Amino acid sequence: MTLLEAAAALRRREISSAELTAAALQRIERLNPSTNAMQTVMADAAREQAKQADYELARGEDRGPLHGIPIAVKDLFSTKGVRTTGGSNLFADHVPDHDAAVVESLCAGGAVLVGKTGMHELAYGITSSNPHFGAIRNPWDRDRIPGGSSGGSAAAVAAGMVSMAMGSDTGGSIRIPASFCGVVGLKPTYGRVSRYGAMPLGFSLDHMGPLTRSVRDAGAVLNGIAGYDPRDETSSRRPVENYVPDIEPSIRGLRIGLPENFYFERLDPDVDAAVRAAFHAAESYGAEIVPLRVPDIAALNTVARVILLAEASALLEPHLEQRDRFGPDVLALLDQGRLLPATDYINAQRLRSALQREFAGLWSRVDCLFTPTTPITAPRIGETATTIGGQSQDVRLAATRLVRAINALGLPAVSVPCGADRRGLPIGLQIVGQPFAEAIILRVAQALVPAEVPVPHL
Amino acid sequence: MTLLEAAAALRRREISSAELTAAALQRIERLNPSTNAMQTVMADAAREQAKQADYELARGEDRGPLHGIPIAVKDLFSTKGVRTTGGSNLFADHVPDHDAAVVESLCAGGAVLVGKTGMHELAYGITSSNPHFGAIRNPWDRDRIPGGSSGGSAAAVAAGMVSMAMGSDTGGSIRIPASFCGVVGLKPTYGRVSRYGAMPLGFSLDHMGPLTRSVRDAGAVLNGIAGYDPRDETSSRRPVENYVPDIEPSIRGLRIGLPENFYFERLDPDVDAAVRAAFHAAESYGAEIVPLRVPDIAALNTVARVILLAEASALLEPHLEQRDRFGPDVLALLDQGRLLPATDYINAQRLRSALQREFAGLWSRVDCLFTPTTPITAPRIGETATTIGGQSQDVRLAATRLVRAINALGLPAVSVPCGADRRGLPIGLQIVGQPFAEAIILRVAQALVPAEVPVPHL
Repeated sequence: MTLLEAAAALRRREISSAELTAAALQRIERLNPSTNAMQTVMADAAREQAKQADYELARGEDRGPLHGIPIAVKDLFSTKGVRTTGGSNLFADHVPDHDAAVVESLCAGGAVLVGKTGMHELAYGITSSNPHFGAIRNPWDRDRIPGGSSGGSAAAVAAGMVSMAMGSDTGGSIRIPASFCGVVGLKPTYGRVSRYGAMPLGFSLDHMGPLTRSVRDAGAVLNGIAGYDPRDETSSRRPVENYVPDIEPSIRGLRIGLPENFYFERLDPDVDAAVRAAFHAAESYGAEIVPLRVPDIAALNTVARVILLAEASALLEPHLEQRDRFGPDVLALLDQGRLLPATDYINAQRLRSALQREFAGLWSRVDCLFTPTTPITAPRIGETATTIGGQSQDVRLAATRLVRAINALGLPAVSVPCGADRRGLPIGLQIVGQPFAEAIILRVAQALVPAEVPVPHL
Repeated sequence: MTLLEAAAALRRREISSAELTAAALQRIERLNPSTNAMQTVMADAAREQAKQADYELARGEDRGPLHGIPIAVKDLFSTKGVRTTGGSNLFADHVPDHDAAVVESLCAGGAVLVGKTGMHELAYGITSSNPHFGAIRNPWDRDRIPGGSSGGSAAAVAAGMVSMAMGSDTGGSIRIPASFCGVVGLKPTYGRVSRYGAMPLGFSLDHMGPLTRSVRDAGAVLNGIAGYDPRDETSSRRPVENYVPDIEPSIRGLRIGLPENFYFERLDPDVDAAVRAAFHAAESYGAEIVPLRVPDIAALNTVARVILLAEASALLEPHLEQRDRFGPDVLALLDQGRLLPATDYINAQRLRSALQREFAGLWSRVDCLFTPTTPITAPRIGETATTIGGQSQDVRLAATRLVRAINALGLPAVSVPCGADRRGLPIGLQIVGQPFAEAIILRVAQALVPAEVPVPHL
């Protein structure tokens, strides 16, 4: 069941929050040993919250669609009194004394927090093969990575443990696992969702957003978490909208950009075919396909990588003397960041501004862009290189290649499933919009994606 | 005559723009050899502009108070077809093909541009002893520096060459020379005045503003140059106000902060006495003096210095191989900036944000702050250390100590003359306001400062 279906069933008294929660906990018990999606399960607290939700709903106190729904959040969102590791050995015993803004909002909406999802160490990577807490496994093929860094959130949603898990995205960390696990992953506009209480990685690149099994669920969650928060100085005062699209929205006349450069190079042929089919589907619903050239995304990727290297090292430098508490991939990145000169960082930020202005020019011509989310489907655990069209590619670079630049631009983007490769692994379509156009990209996504995404047989 | 007096005289037909301009050019001819305030004199173009202004005014086409008034701009503002050196050997022959935004605005207001003022090399220092174009001299004592980097602008206004010259302020470069030369120097809020076409030094610290002989003149110029400019991405969309205060404004009930820490340490005793007298004057006009502790200004000074070192080096790095084209002080700063790690720059920006938030708390308690602008009066040319209370201080550190942090905060601040030391050298009072409170600080300044500041006998 999707989140909104469960919400409707709750209101029809066909099911209770206690039952939904018990089912979620059962499914976690059954599937967590083989997926490792959940870092921490909050069974007792969840049962209490569910009881409370049932009590409130029975009394007619309706807090909205999240009320009584079991959910999870990535283990970098602070939870008062509940361990919050950030996937790091440094914080293995860290118990915050406050909730992250997103947790506050979800709980205020009556959601039932059943657990914290596992993640790539410090959210700094795309495999979610965590050296301290074990590799997270893709529900579609447990020998494969779920992607990262929000790998546990994507795996938990794909495995049907919860209908929604919150993730964070600094260089693709929501969209990559959404693509690899065949779920919906929404990275809102920079400033749209408060980051207060979420462990930072790259201050100017971090975004918070949901992973769900339907597009409308992503909108419903965004309705609950979007809005101004004075505790996050990058938070926008721009008014929120209703982000839940109609069940059968019209996209007639919408202009969808088809990038002629960069985004369709070096793709797995199955990915290429699936994404091109999405353009045809959109056209058949009356959308207009506008071929265009995008600004220099390769340069933006480099800019985003330099900025992240420096910002992450600035944050974590105080801990870097304890070298044995980091996994080798994260330590290598942190060491690299320490060696960057300030002038490179500043020049990267200047180039970022220039490319942002250049990119802004696109929005007079199109309402959104379609691109593949990842050029490949989920690689095997431990695999560091993959072969596309006879050419070997680094898995990390390939996974981030089509998503990372969007973080530097701060644009809203959603990854939605758009088919499967020859092995049956999910393929992701990325829909990118202009700043604060979440409602538009979700409308387009809803037109293309089935009411509930296909799920693996588990 | 002040700018507004000249404007009134023009409208009473007591004088023409041609006469004002001829007088300005004459004064430049007489006093520039001994002050070196003007880098480039634009005599012919100015005479043409003046003729045009007289023609328009005679026809009743009145462009406002700047119409027909001779002015100058610092030689880092691009002027179409007129050499713009930035005080640097690198740009000794640089002729821009466009006007800076403030030049556009001033000319659209009918101002007559008589010349470009000399400055510290690349605006990167406080002496204005330029190694390529000669030292600029303080009209009050030509063996002394005018301060910098807008030393030529301050000297030109103090010497009566023009009633207004534009300056720029990255770490005190408007306020320091205003203090040393006994004129009014206004650094508006970050984002209030467009920086388009002004040679940058520190992207996140640069501000543009006027130096004048009266407070009301500074307001009149701000009226002409404030406002949104899409060509400067830091430009604010906040609506502009009328910045010209009444001739005898009331400051009854206004709350003036008296910093109990930092700002009154290590001052020349004459400076201390003059600034304390300003508090008494304000109190006698009905203002309320509120003693308070300010956040860690020393930390903010360090933050501002680190940020400037890195930003200036990022900008100028491409030129740094031509080492013999830089003066020794600027070269040393640029070399220093190249060695800063990105993590230091990022941590400085984070500390800056934290201190900005802390500082913002003051504005519920006071409407403005009074501090000395500089702890010393103008030092001698070539002097690198000065003695205050028996202690030796580095001249550059002393000159910037009370002004630099305000750039990191982006707050509006005006330096106004508030007396003279035992040698007859001017003393500056700095009035700092909350963001976009230019009208308030100018009102307070107007209440305290004579209609026209004292000028040296030349």
